[in-house]
Amino acid sequence: MSIRIVQSKQNARLKELRRALASPGRSDGLAGIEGPNLLAEALRAKLRIRCVFVAQGSERLLDGLGLTSDVEVLATPRDLLDSALATETPQPVAALVAPPDWTWAHLLGAVKSATPLILVLAGIQDPGNLGTILRSAEAFGADGVLCLSGTVSEWNPKAVRASAGSVFRIPVLHANEVETLAGLREAGVRILATTVQGAEPADQVNLSDAVALMIGNEGNGVPVDLAAKADGAITIPCPGPVESLNAAVAASVLLYEATRQRAAKTGEPRGRRGATR
Amino acid sequence: MSIRIVQSKQNARLKELRRALASPGRSDGLAGIEGPNLLAEALRAKLRIRCVFVAQGSERLLDGLGLTSDVEVLATPRDLLDSALATETPQPVAALVAPPDWTWAHLLGAVKSATPLILVLAGIQDPGNLGTILRSAEAFGADGVLCLSGTVSEWNPKAVRASAGSVFRIPVLHANEVETLAGLREAGVRILATTVQGAEPADQVNLSDAVALMIGNEGNGVPVDLAAKADGAITIPCPGPVESLNAAVAASVLLYEATRQRAAKTGEPRGRRGATR
Repeated sequence: MSIRIVQSKQNARLKELRRALASPGRSDGLAGIEGPNLLAEALRAKLRIRCVFVAQGSERLLDGLGLTSDVEVLATPRDLLDSALATETPQPVAALVAPPDWTWAHLLGAVKSATPLILVLAGIQDPGNLGTILRSAEAFGADGVLCLSGTVSEWNPKAVRASAGSVFRIPVLHANEVETLAGLREAGVRILATTVQGAEPADQVNLSDAVALMIGNEGNGVPVDLAAKADGAITIPCPGPVESLNAAVAASVLLYEATRQRAAKTGEPRGRRGATR
Repeated sequence: MSIRIVQSKQNARLKELRRALASPGRSDGLAGIEGPNLLAEALRAKLRIRCVFVAQGSERLLDGLGLTSDVEVLATPRDLLDSALATETPQPVAALVAPPDWTWAHLLGAVKSATPLILVLAGIQDPGNLGTILRSAEAFGADGVLCLSGTVSEWNPKAVRASAGSVFRIPVLHANEVETLAGLREAGVRILATTVQGAEPADQVNLSDAVALMIGNEGNGVPVDLAAKADGAITIPCPGPVESLNAAVAASVLLYEATRQRAAKTGEPRGRRGATR
């Protein structure tokens, strides 16, 4: 690993990092990630690393990450790197990575499961919520996440952080409403819109077969006209005096309920599906 | 409602607001809340309002809140109020409120349910997670939340916001480990520590009887020595390739599972418990 020293704010790579963090999710873009832990996760997920940035004096944080010799590593004064980063408490390591190129085949879990479990996010706006949803989706063995327009980019630095690395591994696709509904229907996936009340309670809806759970935006839920195009609706029963749940909590509870039903149906032990996934 | 105009940064009430927002949860302290929506929730919850702050020109935001004439209302220049607030995008309304004075009797739901459902938070550090947990606790009809030392204050502005007002209504107590374990045992409440793996899966543990669910800190979970003092352990089965869940998600999924079991047991309809709570 050879390290090149960069002193200028105008360095092209630094400018690229700044842009990637400030405007995540541009279609042509690289993603910026912050901190040695996320870099390690990105390497484990075999993402293509375009460039690694390290604050001078913190080079030892790169030891043991297994960076190959073809990866460009730039060392900069700490304050120069800090100024490029998006966080309040910037870390001394960052990287530009190429987001995975997910397709519908990945999403539908063609090679993984005969009964896809998918989330459709209808305008999640808080990056922390999106990241938490990706983390839960991976933990509960969902096959992928479809983001409709209005949903924040999964490469927003706060989303990357909240995902705890799941953003590197779980298929995330951006699609419009028409593509999403058509793609899921063609694959025989039933689409259920979540509503705050009035629909069948989650534990009385069959979630064992191929299903896509549509999660609404934080303020307004699933838009009425979109919900009307779904195959059905589902509610998380809330016996307390308020019925509103955080969007990431709602998505996670439904994923839990789906895995609970699937395990009860197959009688399989409730462990990991195995390291082959 | 009479409004007094304040122009000085040294105004005693403004200083009190600044202090309440910067160091929430002091034992003698008032809590600072931001925004007309949270003020409306605080009023609905019948909290004692010590003082309301409004930016000059935004006085109409107070209309319809039902502020009584004995409430002190201060109007300040917008930038003066902004400088006292904790948020990146400060709102033109804030207030100092007296936190509710919760006791173990509230927590144990003496008047509400014969089978308490309680959360014990062992060092939740992220205020957004704490607020989300309070919101879920109220929605799923939990009786209260016990915070062990190391848990962030529920009056942290980010926690108040994430709670969506639940912080005004759900009993939250701070207690040390000895008090907590003794208090719960005396009330016949079984204490279950959550662990990432190895314990009984949540849906195979009886959560229908009086139970307290102990949620660990974001980084390390429930400390081993504390878990050893619990009456048992519980795991959320994660069939995916990672097993880690966000702490607020873990708490919420367990609350959901408890309410699911309780509804299945009683066969009651899955609506609200009624407006009397």
